[in-house]
Amino acid sequence: MKVKNLLVAQSGGPTAAINATLAGVVEQAMLSGFNGKIYGGIYGIKGILEENIQDIGKKLASTNDLELLASTPAAALGSCRFKLKEDAQLEQLIQIFRKFEIGYFVYIGGNDSMDTVNRLSAYCAKNNITDISIMGAPKTVDNDLRMTDHTPGFGSAAKFVAVTVSELMRDILVYDKPAVTIVEIMGRDAGWLTAAASLAKINGRAPQLIYLPEVAFDVEKFIADVKRELEKNPAVMVCVSEGIKLGDGRYVFEAGSSLVEKDVFGNAQLSGTASTLTKIVKDALGCKVRAIELNLLQRCASHIASDTDIKESKMLGAKAFAQAFLGISGEMAAIRRVSDSPYKIELVSVPVSQVANLAKEVPMDFLNEEKNNVSEKMTQYLLPLIQGERAIKYKHGLPRHMDLGVLYK
Amino acid sequence: MKVKNLLVAQSGGPTAAINATLAGVVEQAMLSGFNGKIYGGIYGIKGILEENIQDIGKKLASTNDLELLASTPAAALGSCRFKLKEDAQLEQLIQIFRKFEIGYFVYIGGNDSMDTVNRLSAYCAKNNITDISIMGAPKTVDNDLRMTDHTPGFGSAAKFVAVTVSELMRDILVYDKPAVTIVEIMGRDAGWLTAAASLAKINGRAPQLIYLPEVAFDVEKFIADVKRELEKNPAVMVCVSEGIKLGDGRYVFEAGSSLVEKDVFGNAQLSGTASTLTKIVKDALGCKVRAIELNLLQRCASHIASDTDIKESKMLGAKAFAQAFLGISGEMAAIRRVSDSPYKIELVSVPVSQVANLAKEVPMDFLNEEKNNVSEKMTQYLLPLIQGERAIKYKHGLPRHMDLGVLYK
Repeated sequence: MKVKNLLVAQSGGPTAAINATLAGVVEQAMLSGFNGKIYGGIYGIKGILEENIQDIGKKLASTNDLELLASTPAAALGSCRFKLKEDAQLEQLIQIFRKFEIGYFVYIGGNDSMDTVNRLSAYCAKNNITDISIMGAPKTVDNDLRMTDHTPGFGSAAKFVAVTVSELMRDILVYDKPAVTIVEIMGRDAGWLTAAASLAKINGRAPQLIYLPEVAFDVEKFIADVKRELEKNPAVMVCVSEGIKLGDGRYVFEAGSSLVEKDVFGNAQLSGTASTLTKIVKDALGCKVRAIELNLLQRCASHIASDTDIKESKMLGAKAFAQAFLGISGEMAAIRRVSDSPYKIELVSVPVSQVANLAKEVPMDFLNEEKNNVSEKMTQYLLPLIQGERAIKYKHGLPRHMDLGVLYK
Repeated sequence: MKVKNLLVAQSGGPTAAINATLAGVVEQAMLSGFNGKIYGGIYGIKGILEENIQDIGKKLASTNDLELLASTPAAALGSCRFKLKEDAQLEQLIQIFRKFEIGYFVYIGGNDSMDTVNRLSAYCAKNNITDISIMGAPKTVDNDLRMTDHTPGFGSAAKFVAVTVSELMRDILVYDKPAVTIVEIMGRDAGWLTAAASLAKINGRAPQLIYLPEVAFDVEKFIADVKRELEKNPAVMVCVSEGIKLGDGRYVFEAGSSLVEKDVFGNAQLSGTASTLTKIVKDALGCKVRAIELNLLQRCASHIASDTDIKESKMLGAKAFAQAFLGISGEMAAIRRVSDSPYKIELVSVPVSQVANLAKEVPMDFLNEEKNNVSEKMTQYLLPLIQGERAIKYKHGLPRHMDLGVLYK
């Protein structure tokens, strides 16, 4: 029987855990009886179409390498934001797979990447190509994939958000003058990551107000909320998702210039959601207001990764390869939660067609009645995901990273 | 002989290490033969003037408490930004000291706070008040105090900057399309903290360009620098101090709107240094550009504090109290570096008059010839300061913090 090779690639926005999933794919291949080559597709499906395919098996041949890779942030194989355009590209991919004798393809990514897995596996099924198994492994800090309890990368991002907000709470409490701090957190359409800011309450001081994109943002109510909190404590912290929207569907950052007063030159100096809200609060309440964007830091802070997240991310990579090795195609490795406390999960495999291009929003009962903070249900859901710290290896004061040497120098 | 009490307070912008200095003051008081009360001045000298003075000795009576305090970010006693206005306030302070029977006052802060120490101790000397010793303990993430090799809080902020920039470098490398990332780092007049971004080279990938406020910023040269780097690697990272200035002395963020093209509505949407430069690069080179402000995170990220910094900060608090207990007044505890490698220091005490209201800039030979990055001298200086990690205690996934219960609830 002909030897079949494995191709693995990463896609979409990087996370602190996507390399752990890669490590899981490689480790499972090493122990499963698989005897082909392990190829990495460099810069995702876009790189694969350009035949940027490299043998990475030799670069990851030790336990130490795999451990280090699992604690290295971002995508060691590079990434892309690329949706397959036409069926001709599917045929082109299969031809490239044939050239490199690929029998197993694992694509690690979010719902766009699951679209690729879905279309490519459907194309194979339709054309009776049965010797190539195509599996998806989930990834996204937004936690908005369906059919999985949560997504690799989310727990680490949530831990960074909770730790950082907890530290910022200490920082803003030191002055006795009224001041509002508005923290902008990733999440265009789903508020999961912003909700993680609420976990700062473990340390006794949590943001007083939290607004998610799932609830229409009411500017008047927001100002009233902030005013009421300022009367209780001079240091008020508000956490908002970048994607909060007005009742008419416009993003707050889009509507920005129409919501705030212009300066004497007619300029409205805005760039994002937090800075828009900063101006709104300053105009309405006249106190000191500061905007903080957590920006890319929240998705790449592997030094404070959740050990639970990294271990689960690795397991999902392993599961995805294990399924492919069994000949299963068109599915995604996923997590089913059995219980919150004690936290128990099962690893499952779900039809990728039920994941591709869809999104999972925060349910309304995960929020409080006022919809300006989370409910206990959200806390119970989030808490297990940020547990545990990695035993990070430091070199000269910095966490060590693994560089596969496949990206631009 | 009458029992004398100790008063300790914190001032200026908080850091990840200012509580370690407080822990050092308290610990030294506990072991030195001192038998008075340990009072905290809440919200700095401003709170002391309002007699917001609380007995904190009992709250910090165990080794665990002191350890936890040393790893808690921001100022546990609160802080203020407040300069003494007139001599009447000095007299008022002495009267309050008399009321609380204060014999030792340790003020932890930056060069404004050292002005307070200087004026108050001079006032005592002039008025022949010999039974109150007034000492300063340094603090500032900016590292711009004179008469000390470096300042408490700087090493931890530098470690956060180096770790974060190292992680961001991984993140921006994943795409193969040209993109420039501009990271804005604290430092209005001194570039020390921005220079710490260069330490990411320990991980093999460092920002290609670094600009400090000590060098006049040349927009044309900057664009040429970025263009040249983009030709070598599609992912270019630029780190800038918030306080970089043009040749005419204006801050770049002030000059912003005159430097960039207006949009079709005549707006120039700017808020800070990085966002101004983002617009400049976008207009000049047309590629994707992203601004990242590290903001308050860099001064409060105690979860990734430098163990060297925390230990030295504690020692400086201890030294400040030890000097006061010897009857010394009008000085500041400081660090003299004996050697870089092996790293050796001495703890000294310096006249606070030579620190107050002055600043220490980065010397020109700590930069490269082009003045768009650091030199080896800077690396040798910075490297010892970020060494070592704290054994952080976690609770439910978050680093535990100590709350003295003296600030607004």
